[in-house]
Amino acid sequence: MDVISVIRAKRDREELSDGQIDWVVDAYTRGAVADEQMSALAMAILLNGMNRREIARWTAAMIASGDRMDFSSLPRPTADKHSTGGVGDKITLPLAPLVAACGAAVPQLSGRGLGHTGGTLDKLESIPGWRAGLSTAEMLSVLGSAGCVVCAAGDGLAPADRKLYALRDVTGTVESIPLIASSIMSKKIAEGTGSLVLDVKVGSGAFMKTLADARELASTMVGLGTDHGVRTVALLTGMDTPLGRTAGNALEVRESLDVLAGGGPADVVDLTLALAREMLAAAGLPDADPARALADGSAMDAWRRMIAAQGGDPDAPLPTARERHTVTAPATGVLTRLDAYAVGVAAWRLGAGRARKEDPVQAAAGVELHAKPGDRVTEGAPLLTLHTDTPDRIPSALDALTGAYDTAPADTPFTAPPVVLERVG
Amino acid sequence: MDVISVIRAKRDREELSDGQIDWVVDAYTRGAVADEQMSALAMAILLNGMNRREIARWTAAMIASGDRMDFSSLPRPTADKHSTGGVGDKITLPLAPLVAACGAAVPQLSGRGLGHTGGTLDKLESIPGWRAGLSTAEMLSVLGSAGCVVCAAGDGLAPADRKLYALRDVTGTVESIPLIASSIMSKKIAEGTGSLVLDVKVGSGAFMKTLADARELASTMVGLGTDHGVRTVALLTGMDTPLGRTAGNALEVRESLDVLAGGGPADVVDLTLALAREMLAAAGLPDADPARALADGSAMDAWRRMIAAQGGDPDAPLPTARERHTVTAPATGVLTRLDAYAVGVAAWRLGAGRARKEDPVQAAAGVELHAKPGDRVTEGAPLLTLHTDTPDRIPSALDALTGAYDTAPADTPFTAPPVVLERVG
Repeated sequence: MDVISVIRAKRDREELSDGQIDWVVDAYTRGAVADEQMSALAMAILLNGMNRREIARWTAAMIASGDRMDFSSLPRPTADKHSTGGVGDKITLPLAPLVAACGAAVPQLSGRGLGHTGGTLDKLESIPGWRAGLSTAEMLSVLGSAGCVVCAAGDGLAPADRKLYALRDVTGTVESIPLIASSIMSKKIAEGTGSLVLDVKVGSGAFMKTLADARELASTMVGLGTDHGVRTVALLTGMDTPLGRTAGNALEVRESLDVLAGGGPADVVDLTLALAREMLAAAGLPDADPARALADGSAMDAWRRMIAAQGGDPDAPLPTARERHTVTAPATGVLTRLDAYAVGVAAWRLGAGRARKEDPVQAAAGVELHAKPGDRVTEGAPLLTLHTDTPDRIPSALDALTGAYDTAPADTPFTAPPVVLERVG
Repeated sequence: MDVISVIRAKRDREELSDGQIDWVVDAYTRGAVADEQMSALAMAILLNGMNRREIARWTAAMIASGDRMDFSSLPRPTADKHSTGGVGDKITLPLAPLVAACGAAVPQLSGRGLGHTGGTLDKLESIPGWRAGLSTAEMLSVLGSAGCVVCAAGDGLAPADRKLYALRDVTGTVESIPLIASSIMSKKIAEGTGSLVLDVKVGSGAFMKTLADARELASTMVGLGTDHGVRTVALLTGMDTPLGRTAGNALEVRESLDVLAGGGPADVVDLTLALAREMLAAAGLPDADPARALADGSAMDAWRRMIAAQGGDPDAPLPTARERHTVTAPATGVLTRLDAYAVGVAAWRLGAGRARKEDPVQAAAGVELHAKPGDRVTEGAPLLTLHTDTPDRIPSALDALTGAYDTAPADTPFTAPPVVLERVG
């Protein structure tokens, strides 16, 4: 087996054999295939595709590159959620303790943000003392005491994917449905959850810009999960405008606490409940009532236990930004559009995200929305507040927001799209 | 400017701007763009193409990455030839001294073989004492005394191409007309020749398998040369069967000496004369008579001067192989096919070529042909002789030759295709 023949096969639109896939994934993990060879193959895959069999085998090879976790000894069924990434997508924060409060165990291995989408671990790290890095023993202990845990994946889980993900990030080979699906599912299957709900974002602020692409990604991932014995469903959800009213690390923690306290923006509450119901049903707990767990404080209790068990102080004040800048509404009327991608880029430029993996993020930076599409706005009244510790970044954030919102006369009919667009599974 | 946006643009079938091309070629040469990024871009170029403007700019950027030579102070017009590579293609050896004997100066910077096609420098290095590596001063001195010089390109000439060529070789991104054309022409234009004749091979033993691909490559290269003030023409020539009756380093030198002595196989003589006439016409010497220069020994005199000026002994015996193995004709009749690619691979496996740049080659290894398509053959009589210093390689060479030749009854009509298929320019 040699790597050039594998690259040429995919380049020339041939199917890769099981043997070719097993060999190239293993050889890349071992370092016998070089980065410049794998990036050429990744580009050929991006442009020429892989069929279902190839994607399944590629995923299995990435799982086989490392360890698999096993939660079958837990007394409760396990359920996990994965979002393909959006702007203001803090849903994991209220969702994990909510589902735990309803009786399932939620072992959530999360990532950090890169580019315009935020990362769950970055958000939780704005809580003083909270730690993302846990040993497997610590992870099981938190899961036992709080019912949920959100932490970084260990080095032993799908190392082929970790290496390939970092490579794709710097070689323009991220936006490939076969590579995205196999990356997500190899980690989630190796993680050992019994059931999985996928939140596949579609719209300007998501990787998938069209419903057709999102559908293909969702059905590919549902198929991969099902084939590996994980009960898997996917919701396609809108990402043309940010979720909730905040994009940024501490800002999103604060909004999540509002939801856990029984309040919060309607779209965040609705999506949290929709995903919770899917997770509980997939975990064999269809009669649980997540709305009640939000109302009666039991979800908040699970949150406080989880944060404390990971070293965080749930009562500590969250960091606030040194500088704020207000963007006002340009006209009086109704806000008809507020672009998710632009808000994500603005939050990123203000310091909420990172350009390179090794960059730090600002806990307090981000964008606060004072109106969402469908809301009334008044000329000169605050529309957005930009938060940052580095005010010299404000002009570039404002650049990102140029042309990012539209208003119309107040009597213009406007119907907000539903939060959940479709269900696959 | 960032490399990911350049990769994405080509990946998404956009045209690259002049600024993007200049930046990415320069940044790659400096090491600011990594190998894994350039290989992803090369694969995107291979699959999505470049238009004429992009190829011209890419070529100019590779020329600008290094030095340019200048032969305008020479008293004679300069002419060079480049072949895209074939099996048994020793034409440079008789051609350079022949054209020199007719009045032009031939400054030929050549390469080494890789894969199944041989390299001119490897062939000449089978002559005891001959040196491929010359300083610019030595090169000019040989050119002055012999009228021709064949040597390795210095490190300062199109360094972007040298780096990219090595990368393409290990990443399955060789077979791209824009990348092949810009690679060849950047070196030839930087080399400073006043006129250039391209021998674009087409057939089983060539990179271009179809006449349409060969035509596109030829017209792309002729356009690039003309735009840079180099009088450029291309001949499309057949490479379904090896050129002449030998493939291998010393074997091909011996055959070239036959041609310079006024003999040699008809196809080698015909192609040498056709290319010489084109070079002389392009150099402004349309009345020179290359057939006479072969017949009267003046081409042989130029050869001997060139070999001696580069440290070689033109009278030293050439190396011969330790082991020979005869392949006999399977039937009596006429040979209708003898596949160039198979013979090239067999010669390579016998030791005439290299699998990696750093491998040595065997001077004496190769394949000798006792018949060419159209010739009569007799069952059990020698068809091929394999030469090697490492007889354990003979079985794999025989494997390569399985199914590589056909015979037909002696009365079967057979017309050999012409040596020159088309002229572009």
